[in-house]
Amino acid sequence: MHISLRDTGNCLLRAQKIVITAHINPDGDAIGSSLGLMHALQYLGKDVSILIDDDIPVTFSILPGYELIEKPVKPVSCDLLVVLDTGLERLGQVRELVESKSILNIDHHISNDNAAEFLYLDAERAATAEIICQLFKEMGWGFSLQAATALYTGIATDCGFFRYSNTTPSTMCLAAELLAAGVKPNVISEALERKSYAHVQSMATAMQTIELLDNGRVAGVFLNQELTASMESTEGFIDVVRTINGVDVAVLLKCIEEKLCRVSMRSRYTDVSKIAVSLGGGGHIRAAGCTLRMPFLTAKQTLLSAVSRAIGENR
Amino acid sequence: MHISLRDTGNCLLRAQKIVITAHINPDGDAIGSSLGLMHALQYLGKDVSILIDDDIPVTFSILPGYELIEKPVKPVSCDLLVVLDTGLERLGQVRELVESKSILNIDHHISNDNAAEFLYLDAERAATAEIICQLFKEMGWGFSLQAATALYTGIATDCGFFRYSNTTPSTMCLAAELLAAGVKPNVISEALERKSYAHVQSMATAMQTIELLDNGRVAGVFLNQELTASMESTEGFIDVVRTINGVDVAVLLKCIEEKLCRVSMRSRYTDVSKIAVSLGGGGHIRAAGCTLRMPFLTAKQTLLSAVSRAIGENR
Repeated sequence: MHISLRDTGNCLLRAQKIVITAHINPDGDAIGSSLGLMHALQYLGKDVSILIDDDIPVTFSILPGYELIEKPVKPVSCDLLVVLDTGLERLGQVRELVESKSILNIDHHISNDNAAEFLYLDAERAATAEIICQLFKEMGWGFSLQAATALYTGIATDCGFFRYSNTTPSTMCLAAELLAAGVKPNVISEALERKSYAHVQSMATAMQTIELLDNGRVAGVFLNQELTASMESTEGFIDVVRTINGVDVAVLLKCIEEKLCRVSMRSRYTDVSKIAVSLGGGGHIRAAGCTLRMPFLTAKQTLLSAVSRAIGENR
Repeated sequence: MHISLRDTGNCLLRAQKIVITAHINPDGDAIGSSLGLMHALQYLGKDVSILIDDDIPVTFSILPGYELIEKPVKPVSCDLLVVLDTGLERLGQVRELVESKSILNIDHHISNDNAAEFLYLDAERAATAEIICQLFKEMGWGFSLQAATALYTGIATDCGFFRYSNTTPSTMCLAAELLAAGVKPNVISEALERKSYAHVQSMATAMQTIELLDNGRVAGVFLNQELTASMESTEGFIDVVRTINGVDVAVLLKCIEEKLCRVSMRSRYTDVSKIAVSLGGGGHIRAAGCTLRMPFLTAKQTLLSAVSRAIGENR
């Protein structure tokens, strides 16, 4: 049942023992909105815990309360389970282990499964953390520095630090209020952007292997098994490829084992989820991926043929 | 003479023929604040031109009015010369070729030379474009989409898309107003992030030359004359250096001519404007630069000594 923001707040106020959860493979918004809400509810005297069935990236250890996030390992009962930043799927063991009198779901994904007893869904918001900010204001809850830091991180990560198309005047005004509460934008961004020296060196190596194909409409980084093994991470590589002038489809292919290659794709125009599906993978129109169980050079050829075909159809 | 924001507006209103200029090596703020102010003044019926004694990076060709920016090539007389985003230095041929009844200077650099007849300086603002936004509001000028696009770009580029420490609640609230005027944040960010294939390759080369110094607290890219000449731009290089784990001061040194090197610095803790001033340059606490008229290796040594000294004092 869709409820109002005020009823969402009242639903929280009525409960005493509250478990907050969010999707597996948690991102800045899942973690930031969970921690932001936790701080407010704790201030109100509630018994609150956060259970997420996955590892929490250490990048987010700068967020106050990070260390309080737990994995569900044993049965728990509570008055209210609050599900953030997803529908009732992708919760891992939480659904099995948490027994709650009711479920409140707060989300900004249009794809929400509408399965929760109480649902506040606003797909116009850049982040679930933006909705939590609105909830604070609706209920007259002040932004503590702890809550503000978590919520700012949730907003900033989901809108690419105010660069993506989902950034609205409301997004920025709420972020301004969080800064006024004492959040240091540079501390957050520096912590989230920090890279090891080794990673920067790997990126330099990878960038030197960038190939332009299909008259510059396709660009790719192709890392053979040796290069892949030499790198601790390939995070951010494809975003560099994506920004090259004239490039529609950016691909990253890494050879993990002799006959196992992983592919990531990003695009400006072409539907890369179709390409990924044709190769046994999946994803979104502008970001998709697949796994190719074949040797490096065969995988590269297979991938590039599929991309060229898609680009041709899209012409 | 320092004047108020209202007097700054009145000074503009009193003039009819206005020339706007900004510093050589113009960045997004120099260009964006110039264009934003131009649009407002043109709307008010003023005869306005922008003269900047340098090439305007093609990246900014998305800004309405970009094609109207000219280089000073012949003597011009006007009622008012408006100098943006710098003091009265770094104007190239503008000082010689523009004869004006008075000079109005609007700037956000604490290092401003205080040489202008009329000066509005607010070093608390993230960008000169932020001051221009405040001027619009003070004077009751509406944000046209053209002006808003230019001013948003000025603000966003000078505060690293709201990631740097100079980003304040005011910065974000004003940016929110510009979005409300129709600015598309993703269009701006994608256009500004677009890089040529050659630039990405140059960046890869530069990143492979990164040196870690002072126990990893200083990191630098040092480009000799040959490497510098091989690169069309070094934009963004220092931001990669800046994100390396543990780095306080990031430096970029490029050798332009045999005895002419340009230095950019960014920092997390150390006041790099002090270092820059000690070497004849200027800037902000976290971002500063200077020109060293000496051979590459001497410049490198001079710079690193000054940085080490500052880091030592800051310990």
